[in-house]
Amino acid sequence: MAKILSVNLGSSTLKWRLFEMPEEQQIASGLVDFLDNTKAKITVKFGDQKKTRNFDEKLDLKQAIRVLMEELKSLKLVTQLHEIVGVGHRVVAGGEVYKESVVITKDVLQQIDDLDIFAPLHNHLEVGGIELFRQLMPWTTQVAVFDTAFHHTMPAENYLYGIPYDYYKKYGARKYGAHGTSVRYVSKRAAKLLNKPLTDLRLIVMHLGAGSSVTAVNKGKSLDTSMGFTPLDGLMMNTRSGQIDASLVPYLTKKLGLKDSAEMITILNSKSGLLGVSGISDDQRELKKVAKTQPRAQLALDMFANRVIKFVGSYIALMDGVDALIFTGGVGENSFEMRSQIMTSFDYVGATIDATKNKVAGKEIDISEADAKVKTLVIPTNEELMIARDVYARL
Amino acid sequence: MAKILSVNLGSSTLKWRLFEMPEEQQIASGLVDFLDNTKAKITVKFGDQKKTRNFDEKLDLKQAIRVLMEELKSLKLVTQLHEIVGVGHRVVAGGEVYKESVVITKDVLQQIDDLDIFAPLHNHLEVGGIELFRQLMPWTTQVAVFDTAFHHTMPAENYLYGIPYDYYKKYGARKYGAHGTSVRYVSKRAAKLLNKPLTDLRLIVMHLGAGSSVTAVNKGKSLDTSMGFTPLDGLMMNTRSGQIDASLVPYLTKKLGLKDSAEMITILNSKSGLLGVSGISDDQRELKKVAKTQPRAQLALDMFANRVIKFVGSYIALMDGVDALIFTGGVGENSFEMRSQIMTSFDYVGATIDATKNKVAGKEIDISEADAKVKTLVIPTNEELMIARDVYARL
Repeated sequence: MAKILSVNLGSSTLKWRLFEMPEEQQIASGLVDFLDNTKAKITVKFGDQKKTRNFDEKLDLKQAIRVLMEELKSLKLVTQLHEIVGVGHRVVAGGEVYKESVVITKDVLQQIDDLDIFAPLHNHLEVGGIELFRQLMPWTTQVAVFDTAFHHTMPAENYLYGIPYDYYKKYGARKYGAHGTSVRYVSKRAAKLLNKPLTDLRLIVMHLGAGSSVTAVNKGKSLDTSMGFTPLDGLMMNTRSGQIDASLVPYLTKKLGLKDSAEMITILNSKSGLLGVSGISDDQRELKKVAKTQPRAQLALDMFANRVIKFVGSYIALMDGVDALIFTGGVGENSFEMRSQIMTSFDYVGATIDATKNKVAGKEIDISEADAKVKTLVIPTNEELMIARDVYARL
Repeated sequence: MAKILSVNLGSSTLKWRLFEMPEEQQIASGLVDFLDNTKAKITVKFGDQKKTRNFDEKLDLKQAIRVLMEELKSLKLVTQLHEIVGVGHRVVAGGEVYKESVVITKDVLQQIDDLDIFAPLHNHLEVGGIELFRQLMPWTTQVAVFDTAFHHTMPAENYLYGIPYDYYKKYGARKYGAHGTSVRYVSKRAAKLLNKPLTDLRLIVMHLGAGSSVTAVNKGKSLDTSMGFTPLDGLMMNTRSGQIDASLVPYLTKKLGLKDSAEMITILNSKSGLLGVSGISDDQRELKKVAKTQPRAQLALDMFANRVIKFVGSYIALMDGVDALIFTGGVGENSFEMRSQIMTSFDYVGATIDATKNKVAGKEIDISEADAKVKTLVIPTNEELMIARDVYARL
């Protein structure tokens, strides 16, 4: 028996889950909202309970981790902190270096920091977090789990761009993808649900949330994925544009009077997507509420579905067919309307859904029509459990 | 009876065909290679004959047009030049202004010149050519035929990018596409070959050449196309990258020490694609010759096929099925190897080809297997005839 903590550090939040392994039993989960402009807040869920503690000011990351450690003890989720033997950290960019999860050493930390060029702000931040966990829980094994690692099996024809080959060799300009840990978890669950070996299946995983991607999983391996060199590429997302004509970068940089094209990329990452098209919100729930009276809210939702449909279609062709389509992520798990809109386009492969079964949220379920040739599944993702598994395997 | 001249002006060549209308009989075709670095050359084909005339120096555009006019007379292709009553010009960018071909006036010329922002160098050059034709053949009706016009039927969800809506309204930042005249011609021929009304058909046209695109033609109308704001977007081409992660623009601009991102776009247009990936040639025929010993030549060809497959797959999903896939353009019409490589991915919709029938070049033919559910056609394009038709309709 071993308690393992899964950590997902964002720029202003620290999400975590505590597992008992190898039973894969979730003891508690929570969120430290520490960099909030006003007051920090910690939320812990365990059993049927939810505890919240508010602070009078914001916390720095070190204080946030300390508060988490205190809460674990005071809520008796652990008797003593030494019961936690491993900590797994979600790391955005593993580049071509990390093809699987890795036990953290000083050299590894340096390497992850160097890979920050592929995920500006992310890796550097995560390295800071890992260092603090090493300091505050020095008895634990720390493991880095990379969002990109699952995609290392993509063949060159999918991960390379049509640019001079040297730019790949010298500057690492290629597709890395993201959401790999989620896709890895969901693919395994799908095989269980379908009662077939993963190695016999052609799956397409739609991870739809604030950041969204589509991945073709052929025989258990990532064949192609929609995110690219960075998570900007691919589908249209909450605030990210997804694919655009690269010519628009200098064109708009000039039209908008920006300092340089890097500023334009910031706009494409943070002010585009659903938010930019609708001019209303980056949240599909908000857009749905006003879609009947605000045409641009409906347009944004239609464009979102349209991009998902096209990526899924392209991957069906790439595998010359498909066995199952899988919805996961906040939107994929919870929005039956978006699932239903997307699924109007796949009658031609025999992927039809049952409208009644589809009306679920956050539940693992086969929503296919009884005679559907291609299955459609909803599978809530659990990246944190996948991280805990990777840590446990490395203890 | 009316003789009509179709003109396609490039940066160093003037391609033309002369038709007898409404019989649609091609009298002659030719090329003036006038801006060649060394010596200009004019080639004329008529009947079974081919005539070439070489010059000691290069010509300017006005001289080139004069030479063409002289040759038409001296080869007795016309008795007198006044028999030519109309001249049709291929124009790359029609923006949102031109939804169909238009008789040229002074205002139209100004408008086309203004649209040069959407096709840097192209429109401006074409306006220069049209002005000279108006000067030298003032008795003719001149018509502009736009590469973008056929795509004006695309719905907003396909032509808009996931960027702030204002950028579309204020700066015209949207998808315009290209190859429209070719796709329009080929779609009509396909309906004839399939013996069905165009309005009953879901077609996908692969125009594969030096510049390449895929277009979904639903009931005779362009539904979506792979080229974007400019012809850089979409498929990987001879020297164009096609789709890339926009983040790569500032990233590579910096790594390569370029002056600005516009320089990067020049590289993506002129030094990328097959040429950039292979490092050998931008010509598929050359790459095929060395593919066995040069892995990057094979890689470039594989990437080309891979992009076509993914776009076709995405458009099959967009139409929830397809009735016929059509190959056109230099590569699409002539390379049975590339057709065969692409067609390995569409068994799942019942689009299978007959290997023997497929071994043709430049011929209009149904290459489907006898029992194929979805037809596969090869249709040599004839943009020039389509242009002549548009001129004749406007006389």
